[in-house]
Amino acid sequence: MSDYPSILLENAVNQFSSLPGLGRKTALRLVLHLLRQPENDVEAFADALTRLKKEVHYCRICHNISDTEVCPICQSTRRDRQTVCVVENIQDVMSVEKTGQYSGLYHVLGGIISPMDGIGPKDIEIDSLVARIEPEQIKEVILALPTTMEGDTTNFYIYRRLAPTGVRVSQIARGMAIGNELEYTDEITLGRSILNRVEFKG
Amino acid sequence: MSDYPSILLENAVNQFSSLPGLGRKTALRLVLHLLRQPENDVEAFADALTRLKKEVHYCRICHNISDTEVCPICQSTRRDRQTVCVVENIQDVMSVEKTGQYSGLYHVLGGIISPMDGIGPKDIEIDSLVARIEPEQIKEVILALPTTMEGDTTNFYIYRRLAPTGVRVSQIARGMAIGNELEYTDEITLGRSILNRVEFKG
Repeated sequence: MSDYPSILLENAVNQFSSLPGLGRKTALRLVLHLLRQPENDVEAFADALTRLKKEVHYCRICHNISDTEVCPICQSTRRDRQTVCVVENIQDVMSVEKTGQYSGLYHVLGGIISPMDGIGPKDIEIDSLVARIEPEQIKEVILALPTTMEGDTTNFYIYRRLAPTGVRVSQIARGMAIGNELEYTDEITLGRSILNRVEFKG
Repeated sequence: MSDYPSILLENAVNQFSSLPGLGRKTALRLVLHLLRQPENDVEAFADALTRLKKEVHYCRICHNISDTEVCPICQSTRRDRQTVCVVENIQDVMSVEKTGQYSGLYHVLGGIISPMDGIGPKDIEIDSLVARIEPEQIKEVILALPTTMEGDTTNFYIYRRLAPTGVRVSQIARGMAIGNELEYTDEITLGRSILNRVEFKG
């Protein structure tokens, strides 16, 4: 006999425990919770998953997730349409949006160059970024990629690809996180912060 | 604009974050993981949930979860059919089964008496337990409830209800740390507790 008294139960537990970071005990707890909910609620859960996968779009311009062919940000007339912020993935768009400090457009690469993982420039949305510059009359591209070796490699590759277009290329500032103590900042970050110091305007 | 670029995405995140112990960041991570899986896999996930809720049975004898009207344990001819282990819930059946120390039948109460939560004896499967003793010729009832105040109250109530039937009533040994749940007790301790059960003296 299996560890589970019901194959239906086991199937549901298997599905949940296939998700990253969920073990079998947690999965069982979640499934038994769902089992106690009204049938309509469980239907709604299942339906949300099916519809998400079947009906979701990726914006054909910026490749962000979207319910429409072109996402609301790319459609917006109230945003600065001459600036494009390049990010690795969808979560990063949400993170930048939450700051409330940015009102331009986005370009979601869908990954970064990582030879170790076999991801090259052709596997991510770099060609489509370069192709946007002239027709959309983009004036500035802000690189907002992870501050890792892979992020640096990708930054440098994009920079070289964009050079012929004459567009201004910037990258988000690197330095100490706001609210941190020098004592607890790693040496590389602190070293960079010193090299990249800016004029103090009191 | 909402925090999410897609209503479909937001719906799925809402569903996951409605589960106990899952916050919105974790929910988003799980949903984006699912979004990267093949459509068939996501369908299978949704399907497992729908079928679980629609098709699952509770054994009409012991009230354990089951794919059939009577669960495999209650149907089994290889188990000791004169002993019934009383547990709070489905997880507890799985926990006892895992010890490999018990080969009798079960009775799942579906809760324990808890005046604080408004759960009285009539809200859980006590009547149906008492009704099993004579027709099934049960010789021993093992109480395997949590070692909490509520568990003790329930033990005592069941003991008094069973007294007229003359069935032997035992409880699992208090090798378990007081205040713990069966689900989180290691298999060896739980197995010992079953072997060292003592007669219940109200």
